[in-house]
Amino acid sequence: MAAAVDVNPPLEDEKQISTQPPSLSLSTGLAVRLACRSNTLTTVTSGLAPTHLQANLIILPSRYAADFRLLCARNPVPCPLIAESSTAGSYTCIKSCNNGLSDAQILSDVDIRRDAPRYMVYRDSQLAKKDCLDICSEWTDDHVAFLIGCSYSFESALKEAGLEDRHTKLGRNVPMYRTNVPLCPAGVFTGGTYVVSMRPYKASEIERVREITRGYSETHGEPIAWGWDAVARLGIGDIDAPDWGEVSLTLTKDGRFLGDMVGSEEEVPVFWGCGVTPQEAVMRAGIEGTVMAHSPGHMLLLDVRDHDIIQS
Amino acid sequence: MAAAVDVNPPLEDEKQISTQPPSLSLSTGLAVRLACRSNTLTTVTSGLAPTHLQANLIILPSRYAADFRLLCARNPVPCPLIAESSTAGSYTCIKSCNNGLSDAQILSDVDIRRDAPRYMVYRDSQLAKKDCLDICSEWTDDHVAFLIGCSYSFESALKEAGLEDRHTKLGRNVPMYRTNVPLCPAGVFTGGTYVVSMRPYKASEIERVREITRGYSETHGEPIAWGWDAVARLGIGDIDAPDWGEVSLTLTKDGRFLGDMVGSEEEVPVFWGCGVTPQEAVMRAGIEGTVMAHSPGHMLLLDVRDHDIIQS
Repeated sequence: MAAAVDVNPPLEDEKQISTQPPSLSLSTGLAVRLACRSNTLTTVTSGLAPTHLQANLIILPSRYAADFRLLCARNPVPCPLIAESSTAGSYTCIKSCNNGLSDAQILSDVDIRRDAPRYMVYRDSQLAKKDCLDICSEWTDDHVAFLIGCSYSFESALKEAGLEDRHTKLGRNVPMYRTNVPLCPAGVFTGGTYVVSMRPYKASEIERVREITRGYSETHGEPIAWGWDAVARLGIGDIDAPDWGEVSLTLTKDGRFLGDMVGSEEEVPVFWGCGVTPQEAVMRAGIEGTVMAHSPGHMLLLDVRDHDIIQS
Repeated sequence: MAAAVDVNPPLEDEKQISTQPPSLSLSTGLAVRLACRSNTLTTVTSGLAPTHLQANLIILPSRYAADFRLLCARNPVPCPLIAESSTAGSYTCIKSCNNGLSDAQILSDVDIRRDAPRYMVYRDSQLAKKDCLDICSEWTDDHVAFLIGCSYSFESALKEAGLEDRHTKLGRNVPMYRTNVPLCPAGVFTGGTYVVSMRPYKASEIERVREITRGYSETHGEPIAWGWDAVARLGIGDIDAPDWGEVSLTLTKDGRFLGDMVGSEEEVPVFWGCGVTPQEAVMRAGIEGTVMAHSPGHMLLLDVRDHDIIQS
């Protein structure tokens, strides 16, 4: 079944939202977390605190934790598990799930309930609240938070190589799509499929883009597919209608120009595994109780930096 | 393109092959390896040395080793990497790729060129020799062997739970199928898809089968799909015509009884990731030079046993 995130429950806390644009002076993970904690920052986090890793969040009742770890282990490209709550109920202390990184290196001074710009709340696999500023009233002693790598993390490296992604140039959220590529099931988590993010590049740039992102195994690594034929192969119905985020291609396959874009005709879509995947997988599993997550594009910023995780 | 393993080059060493059936007295990994080394054992290895892990082999020119490791890391369900040559050129010494297992625990006293019952040899991605008894004349100082987990390894546990697989009961090779489920590409390894093995079970047995095999993450773990609708979803054209191995279902979807089978009408196909996947992926990548592998079903037996790797 299609996940429940298409419905539109009331936007929580709407009147409290600051309308100021994200400040590019937020140059560290901690600065971004503190800005979220005070509700100063409530927007998407793409481009903030360059070189700092950004994480997807999924917060589950503890009885589902073991199956979720297995889902990540079996599907490391869309679901690269970086860290989790140190114990059930802990929202201030995490433990590393990565052999190469210490707990403190990943994250310190955190309140997982408040340090992402916006959150989603699901009850019994149905969306209950959308784009909340915090989840303090939902968190219980039985909840376990999982931090999953995000492809925003390699955008600094792409920019440095002269391959800045379109959505950052346009100040938009990256476009994300559901696909028909099955996840390997794990315990209660059956029936899930990959979610992908998309960045347009010229065909001649793809090998370089693959090389640059290849080492970022903690944040989805190299693309999973590219080119116009990949759109149908992944089961994406309409490249101009992402399931989350905003369009960022210059031209559709039919050559139709999309108004305010910049770019060139030779561009093709390039798809990466996306950390919205576990959120979708959890919803499709039809699990019971209260599940929480970040709002797509509104990530938790970490202390660890891309040069700490890059693999040659 | 379809891989080259369908063509029929001359069967190497045919006259030297012992026709004696595999002895079930071969109760250790070493006993099986020595029987292969002396060409006493030349058959499929399903059911041999119960509880000992069995491994798929893929042997590559060293320049492709890094990309192949990444392919395994990104696709751990079909390609669970257990160990590799300690250095390029080494066929007697391996190093563990598994944090929980020491080199010696996995395998000692081995000659990778001779210790599987049969081998395939590819040159420039085309099958050159099929079902050879050894690959001594092909091995060079530049070759790196990779050992990939095999689902034969959990068949003892299934049998112990009263869920013995059909192909072992029938003394056949497990049926294996190409699918359209894409692998996550890695460097030169693009365009690969999952290969799956299939064991028929009653629908009522599937949750128990999932539970028993779930902990075997080094040997493909729990199934990736099950039920009749999975056949089309995986892109399998004809369940009665496996790409490797032999049919083992009692009834086709149309209710047609397959002669000498035993079983019941309620059975459905259950599919696991298969270690033939990396062999297919290597062929599809169109890489240059001499590549070697085991013949499907003719595995390298290890010293490590299933209780050493099972995860709760």
